[in-house]
Amino acid sequence: MDKLVDRLGSVVGSVVVDPDVLEAHRQDAATFCTAGAPLVLVRPSTTAEVQEVVRAAGEYGVPIVTQGARTGLSGAANAIDGCILLSTARMNQVLEVSVEDQVAVVQPGVINADLSRAVLEQGLFYPPDPSSWEMSTVGGNIATNAGGLCCVKYGVTGDFVRGLEVVLASGEVIRTGRRTVKGVAGYDLTHVIVGSEGTLGIVTEATLALRPAPEAALTAAATFLSIEEGVAAAAAVMGSGLRPSLLEFIDGVTARAIQDYRDMGLPANVGSLLLAQSDRGPRAAEDVAAIAEICTAHGAVDVAVASDAEESAMLLEARRLVHFANEKLGTSLIDDVAVPRSQLVALLHGIDAISKQYDVLIACPGHIGDGNMHPTVIFDQADPAAQARALEAFGAVMDLGLSLGGTITGEHGVGKLKRQWLAQELGPVGLQLQRDVKAAFDPRGLLNPDKLFL
Amino acid sequence: MDKLVDRLGSVVGSVVVDPDVLEAHRQDAATFCTAGAPLVLVRPSTTAEVQEVVRAAGEYGVPIVTQGARTGLSGAANAIDGCILLSTARMNQVLEVSVEDQVAVVQPGVINADLSRAVLEQGLFYPPDPSSWEMSTVGGNIATNAGGLCCVKYGVTGDFVRGLEVVLASGEVIRTGRRTVKGVAGYDLTHVIVGSEGTLGIVTEATLALRPAPEAALTAAATFLSIEEGVAAAAAVMGSGLRPSLLEFIDGVTARAIQDYRDMGLPANVGSLLLAQSDRGPRAAEDVAAIAEICTAHGAVDVAVASDAEESAMLLEARRLVHFANEKLGTSLIDDVAVPRSQLVALLHGIDAISKQYDVLIACPGHIGDGNMHPTVIFDQADPAAQARALEAFGAVMDLGLSLGGTITGEHGVGKLKRQWLAQELGPVGLQLQRDVKAAFDPRGLLNPDKLFL
Ligand SMILES: Cc1cc2nc3c(=O)[nH]c(=O)nc-3n(C[C@H](O)[C@H](O)[C@H](O)COP(=O)(O)OP(=O)(O)OC[C@H]3O[C@@H](n4cnc5c(N)ncnc54)[C@H](O)[C@@H]3O)c2cc1C
Ligand SMILES: Cc1cc2nc3c(=O)[nH]c(=O)nc-3n(C[C@H](O)[C@H](O)[C@H](O)COP(=O)(O)OP(=O)(O)OC[C@H]3O[C@@H](n4cnc5c(N)ncnc54)[C@H](O)[C@@H]3O)c2cc1C
Repeated sequence: MDKLVDRLGSVVGSVVVDPDVLEAHRQDAATFCTAGAPLVLVRPSTTAEVQEVVRAAGEYGVPIVTQGARTGLSGAANAIDGCILLSTARMNQVLEVSVEDQVAVVQPGVINADLSRAVLEQGLFYPPDPSSWEMSTVGGNIATNAGGLCCVKYGVTGDFVRGLEVVLASGEVIRTGRRTVKGVAGYDLTHVIVGSEGTLGIVTEATLALRPAPEAALTAAATFLSIEEGVAAAAAVMGSGLRPSLLEFIDGVTARAIQDYRDMGLPANVGSLLLAQSDRGPRAAEDVAAIAEICTAHGAVDVAVASDAEESAMLLEARRLVHFANEKLGTSLIDDVAVPRSQLVALLHGIDAISKQYDVLIACPGHIGDGNMHPTVIFDQADPAAQARALEAFGAVMDLGLSLGGTITGEHGVGKLKRQWLAQELGPVGLQLQRDVKAAFDPRGLLNPDKLFL
Repeated sequence: MDKLVDRLGSVVGSVVVDPDVLEAHRQDAATFCTAGAPLVLVRPSTTAEVQEVVRAAGEYGVPIVTQGARTGLSGAANAIDGCILLSTARMNQVLEVSVEDQVAVVQPGVINADLSRAVLEQGLFYPPDPSSWEMSTVGGNIATNAGGLCCVKYGVTGDFVRGLEVVLASGEVIRTGRRTVKGVAGYDLTHVIVGSEGTLGIVTEATLALRPAPEAALTAAATFLSIEEGVAAAAAVMGSGLRPSLLEFIDGVTARAIQDYRDMGLPANVGSLLLAQSDRGPRAAEDVAAIAEICTAHGAVDVAVASDAEESAMLLEARRLVHFANEKLGTSLIDDVAVPRSQLVALLHGIDAISKQYDVLIACPGHIGDGNMHPTVIFDQADPAAQARALEAFGAVMDLGLSLGGTITGEHGVGKLKRQWLAQELGPVGLQLQRDVKAAFDPRGLLNPDKLFL
């Protein structure tokens, strides 16, 4: 293996074997996910360097784990024993922003927020906005098909990916997709690679669709005394044709945690909060007023409507505090089920029952407009029995999601964390076909081989 | 083969060997595309029947060509010698329309317009609207990833496909995707099957996304004396953030053909027409006025703005006559290139040069908002030399599209017609990967084997 490291040193500018650096790169942000000990970390700067790394790995039969910013929540970027960690950190250039074609061409290591700012300077908008946007890379967003707050109106990362340059397991390069808006020449391999968690190829360049930048959004925030009213109001908003640019749900457990974390004047008996935005410029005020009316009609005890950007940000503050407030309650294991919107009340009731059955606290904030919730199991990590119960509850939530016609993961991915549930969701024939597709791309299993499938 | 036909008769309700019926089913709507002589036509009514047909075909090693309404424009549904034609005509049920989840579940043989009407009754909207919507099937639309007039705002068929039930070449059934808005569990096989032209599996059920129905659209129509002004106005509309629900371009050749076909008051020196719609209800009038202003600023000599649905339909009349008017000029060979919007003028100039070089007439209407044009080579079929030149010009247009960073097909597909250009667009490595994916789905090549690839 020393020979492999030497070889890598001769083809890539940045090759690291320092144990502390390797240790720091072993894992992504998923809780309770094991990781192996990597052999070496490489940081190529060009597609050609990536190709050289892949060819060397192939010759030595050593697996490659591609890493963006390691903010993933499924262990998909976790090291495998003896692997090459391939970080895209040095491939961080925005190569082109075209106003005429409304596209950006980027290297994979560009940070989401950097891209958003670069295109905004040209009056354009790159919608995908995972909450990790200040940290996560566009390559990681593509490889996980990341969602975000504005998906409810604009869609997920994949909806903005037009074309990719990809280094295959053979070391060859392909270009999938196109720069044009439409195109149907051959199978859509672009969207097989989107969400493939580094298992089919290494994305070395992406052509992304942009839109004209909308004006700053206005916010409405509604407080309900029950879960059911908040869910019903959300359904009514989605059925109204209003197209909010954000529609977030905060459950009672989380709302109380937020109130404890910072006084936001929420009543002790808060059942749920609904936060909505419209970014339709001169029409936004009218939209949020209409949403406020819907919330009132559905029993909201308090409805606040912002009249400017500053007030909007204040009203959204609760959403920003979700993570920190719940962290104060204990260790959290964040799930990511999505269900058809008609099943949301059943999901929330079922989660309440699971919480009681396993004697753990479960908060349940989520992207309610898309039915994508983040049931968060909160427990005391110092108590092994509590931890065991938490893990069981985590699984029970996925079983529940599937039983309601949903999916085990709306946006975080399968990675290493949810491999055992993937078979349940896909069934044996579906799973085998997925393995066959993997084999078509990567017959020797060199790319992130212990992810997705057990 | 008699045995196979007997076997099919025992498992499917409708089995036809009548030569006239077979002859009538040999081809889709593509001009100049050869077709083989089918063995038999079957019309299954259920997924189980489709499975039986596929199993029988597998045992006898006979290829299957799936057919929707045969309105395709690439020969993708054309018969292969000795094949089983599998028509979805009897699988024409809308199985469910859910207002709460904003989804429809349909069998593949449902006609697009029937689905649109069924969901509209519930206040919902299924946007994909190919001009063939009164004839073509949802299954065919999915298998070609059909576009339409409203793509410019809403996207193509694939953007509305959430999940599929598919009978594989093995006779097994899989369900891909989901009913939920979001989901990232495993590779996105749904969107590999979308646009796969019956070569990867037979779609037997689809779960489709719907939206709240918009109000009737208003239309603006602008006349320019040059091509360049029309293209520049379209670019300005797309850059404005206005989001028209339709943006169609009619070139001078086509415009004059329309004027000859029916007096619409177009000047003899018309260079191009631009038709735009907005469906934003109470805001539509404001939108079309803004679009009209943009057109005037870009040199339009005449701009008409509709104030109600009836006037809107009248203004759109020119678009509806494109096909008929050009047909009057001669036999037409319709192409379907798409280019980045910044390359549209170069495309139109290049097409003009090709028209001169090959001494054929080329009309060039198109979905300009998406850069997807339909250069239409018009010639005298009675003249073999003219036909030969027309075919060469058809190829030259695709070469031109590729040279401008575009694609050989924006929405009609590769089928049998464009197989030789696919390799050019994808390159050898990309093409091989496509073949490997085909082999993962259909190792024996039973499903529509002579399509897509040469
Ligand atoms: C505070 C916080 C908030 C978050 N909010 C959201 C949210 O709102 N929505 C959401 O969807 N997720 C969210 N996430 C999860 C995470 O940020 C996303 O999954 C993100 O897309 C990961 O990007 P990354 O650059 O960190 O990728 P990594 O974690 O490094 O990698 C993720 C996967 O992508 C692969 N990969 C990375 N780059 C490439 C490449 N160039 N080619 C091929 N494969 C590659 C890796 O192998 C791995 O499988 C959040 C995470 C945190 C910590
Ligand atoms: C007048 C006219 C206007 C048109 N306008 C447009 C337009 O605006 N936009 C556009 O995109 N196209 C347009 N087309 C082309 C055509 O209508 C579309 O390609 C349409 O999607 C084909 O549907 P179909 O049911 O006729 O399918 P077919 O032509 O029967 O089949 C098309 C392909 O789909 C496959 N297929 C069909 N059903 C299934 C299934 N259930 N499972 C798997 N594979 C299947 C077939 O094998 C074949 O490969 C037009 C055609 C005409 C004649």
